[in-house]
Amino acid sequence: MTRTPALAVPSPGAPFERIVLDRRELRPDDVLIDIAYAGICHSDLHQAAEEWGSAIFPMVPGHEIAGTVTAVGSAVTSHQVGDRVGVGCMVDSCGQCEHCRSGREQYCVQGNIPTYNGVGLDGENTYGGYSKQVVVKESFVCRIPDGVALDVAAPLLCAGITTYSPLNQWNVGPGTKVAVVGLGGLGHLAVKIAVAMGAEVTVLSQSLKKQEDGLRLGAADYYATSDETTFEALRGHFDLILNTVSAQLPVDAYLSMLTVGGAMVNVGAPSEPLSYNAFSLIAGNKSLSGSLIGGIPETQEMLDFCAEHGIGADIEVISGDRVDEAYERVRASDVRYRFVIDTATLGEAD
Amino acid sequence: MTRTPALAVPSPGAPFERIVLDRRELRPDDVLIDIAYAGICHSDLHQAAEEWGSAIFPMVPGHEIAGTVTAVGSAVTSHQVGDRVGVGCMVDSCGQCEHCRSGREQYCVQGNIPTYNGVGLDGENTYGGYSKQVVVKESFVCRIPDGVALDVAAPLLCAGITTYSPLNQWNVGPGTKVAVVGLGGLGHLAVKIAVAMGAEVTVLSQSLKKQEDGLRLGAADYYATSDETTFEALRGHFDLILNTVSAQLPVDAYLSMLTVGGAMVNVGAPSEPLSYNAFSLIAGNKSLSGSLIGGIPETQEMLDFCAEHGIGADIEVISGDRVDEAYERVRASDVRYRFVIDTATLGEAD
Repeated sequence: MTRTPALAVPSPGAPFERIVLDRRELRPDDVLIDIAYAGICHSDLHQAAEEWGSAIFPMVPGHEIAGTVTAVGSAVTSHQVGDRVGVGCMVDSCGQCEHCRSGREQYCVQGNIPTYNGVGLDGENTYGGYSKQVVVKESFVCRIPDGVALDVAAPLLCAGITTYSPLNQWNVGPGTKVAVVGLGGLGHLAVKIAVAMGAEVTVLSQSLKKQEDGLRLGAADYYATSDETTFEALRGHFDLILNTVSAQLPVDAYLSMLTVGGAMVNVGAPSEPLSYNAFSLIAGNKSLSGSLIGGIPETQEMLDFCAEHGIGADIEVISGDRVDEAYERVRASDVRYRFVIDTATLGEAD
Repeated sequence: MTRTPALAVPSPGAPFERIVLDRRELRPDDVLIDIAYAGICHSDLHQAAEEWGSAIFPMVPGHEIAGTVTAVGSAVTSHQVGDRVGVGCMVDSCGQCEHCRSGREQYCVQGNIPTYNGVGLDGENTYGGYSKQVVVKESFVCRIPDGVALDVAAPLLCAGITTYSPLNQWNVGPGTKVAVVGLGGLGHLAVKIAVAMGAEVTVLSQSLKKQEDGLRLGAADYYATSDETTFEALRGHFDLILNTVSAQLPVDAYLSMLTVGGAMVNVGAPSEPLSYNAFSLIAGNKSLSGSLIGGIPETQEMLDFCAEHGIGADIEVISGDRVDEAYERVRASDVRYRFVIDTATLGEAD
């Protein structure tokens, strides 16, 4: 058993408290990770406030984990002590179904085991990365290449793979015209990754407030969706629209910006239903799709891609005592573009 | 000029009248076709009643045309007198845009020229197949292989290609599980074609009224969507759901029947918006798509495929004086599965 400090929400929406967690004894296929940094994902806020259905409290959020291996179980072959590693949104799955066997564990027919606010196959609750140490099954641990610092790597484990996976699936590359809707934690990485893939990238944001950032990140264009002429100017323009926001969008208007055969892929989602006219799809052989994080092999591929292209998140590093404040600022979209907790500030277990 | 008898709707929703049309002199790239049969498509009803926006009257509907070439223009190379040919939903397009050049003329950026209720590039109104003769640019005329009789071939030119194209685009074949929603003019051909492609086909219909037909056409299963247990029984089952109906559907419930990565493709569409929850797409990497008829090369491919597999429409041949009655029965879904007008019953022009 490893006793480790952590930040927990004791009840829905309550402020964070410092607690001490017992991480399980290493099983043969487990690795013990000293967490260096943990990103704050918007979904952490939703779950900590119990906005996404019944949740488990106390809750230790955090599924953007970057750190170093400090111990390995007796049967571990893929990692060794000293390795720089990352853990994302899931820590286990059935391993038997067609999706697990094809490396798309996020779509496990039994449901994947989330890194926190979940129950493991052993019946134990899972606790996430706002903590100094974590024990994870080796097959859900990815290598972080030397080319990426751990602090800017942490957000890649959720925001990075969530955007890389659809860009990859829809074959984005030179000649592809990609729109990224929303320039936040996911959106800013989507821009960097799509640009590195060779695409011509346009940011579609509510206002032009972050235009300078968008162009600095590599976008060729930046349009405000509050300006109705945007939709006319970009009519039939995009091969892919990657929607990273959770707001209610006028879906038909967005579809009108796709070229024939184009797709609008949602990785952000409002809780309320969206409305569309089937003719918007039929008239141009268009698609509305969705994509959920990515599988473990693809997450490793994404980390390697980011290292090769020098991509990390744009971050603001904070100490553990500022997480409540950070949550307020995330709710207000006041972060460019990801808060990352320096877990060295969490103190010791005893 | 060729004078030819036709059936026209003089004003929105009025009964048909017999008129005489002047078909244009053959241009160098035109062919003159003696129409043998013209199918009655549900979209004919919508347009004749001006339910799909402003329409042109008098209107001669008909875009499921099968007949024989009786004359060709001086530069025609692809057809000759005596050829069995078909004409579908469009008779021209710009020919220059990327979609036209790739054989997807239905998505022409200028808009394709519909076979009727349209205006040609020459500024003249177009009149469709409820007529004894028609003049069409050779590149919009397809060969009907000897293996398919003209009466059962006619509906292939719209209902056939509209269902073949998405089945083809989504790579339906052995091992694919396909649901066909609705067993009507489009649906019954979708079943035949998907079965011939090697798929395991399930019909999803409101009731079990046409179950015997569905199984006779080759479906492996038949479920009533009025029975709520259908959705639970088929959860995660289909690779492709081809929706041929124009009714308001509970989209999320249909998406739940798709497997990971599956697609629901609409070829039928209600005029009212549909509603969906983005999580229904995200949680399983699913898509909602649309498909519009098919291009000319794909229409020819479909006709060849149908000939090879002995596929024609299930039809009820009627004389020209029964078209009003047929429209009533189509509105009541009382046809198995397509009315086809025998144009020999239209008399002579003079």
